[in-house]
Amino acid sequence: MATKAEKTNNIEGHHPEKCRVLGQVLDRIGDKWTIMAVGTLSGGPMRFNEIMRRIGGVSHRMLTLTLRGLERDGLVRRTAYPTIPPKVEYELTQLGRSLTEPLAILLAWGEMHSDEIETARKAFENNKT
Amino acid sequence: MATKAEKTNNIEGHHPEKCRVLGQVLDRIGDKWTIMAVGTLSGGPMRFNEIMRRIGGVSHRMLTLTLRGLERDGLVRRTAYPTIPPKVEYELTQLGRSLTEPLAILLAWGEMHSDEIETARKAFENNKT
Repeated sequence: MATKAEKTNNIEGHHPEKCRVLGQVLDRIGDKWTIMAVGTLSGGPMRFNEIMRRIGGVSHRMLTLTLRGLERDGLVRRTAYPTIPPKVEYELTQLGRSLTEPLAILLAWGEMHSDEIETARKAFENNKT
Repeated sequence: MATKAEKTNNIEGHHPEKCRVLGQVLDRIGDKWTIMAVGTLSGGPMRFNEIMRRIGGVSHRMLTLTLRGLERDGLVRRTAYPTIPPKVEYELTQLGRSLTEPLAILLAWGEMHSDEIETARKAFENNKT
């Protein structure tokens, strides 16, 4: 932890600044459709309808927005082939693929502890009433 | 990746289900104030005002909501000491401490790639205009 003096004088590289970077990353990638799109595309290049089918439960509009956000951040590449009918494929860039590892670790944490969180939630709700 | 048949017949343990678990975890912990609160509390037990000061830029109300959410999910323990004036401390539970490692890995990814994402964003915006 940074001391108060350090925090005031130079937050670069210190805890609050790191948290801020992480916050920005999570603002970008930390919603479930983004995660699910990255996870789905880790299987290889795919067309829109296949991504939608594999994710399940995502609206056309939400998936469009999600893929556009990923494209904008350089995590997904969109390729339009000039065929008839036109064919559009989405695939992870190298940057996108590099994100699958940290996400897998977070997923493992979630799988390991989701029951524990569920139990804590129920206990908390019961305590309130 | 699960094949289509596997996905239809039994999603348990397959990709879409894993993504869903991860989505739920991220719905819980994937906002920046939660991350910053967990990061700050990794320094040890703290009172409300100290957490607020260390995070910086968080409103009283937002931090109250954030800490309550963390308490509900079993990641933070709130202890009220019957002193005069009353003293209330927050600290990470074992579950909360176990989250600091995956978050550190995601943070490292963010620090390593935030410039790349920023560059991609600018290129994308410039392409549009």
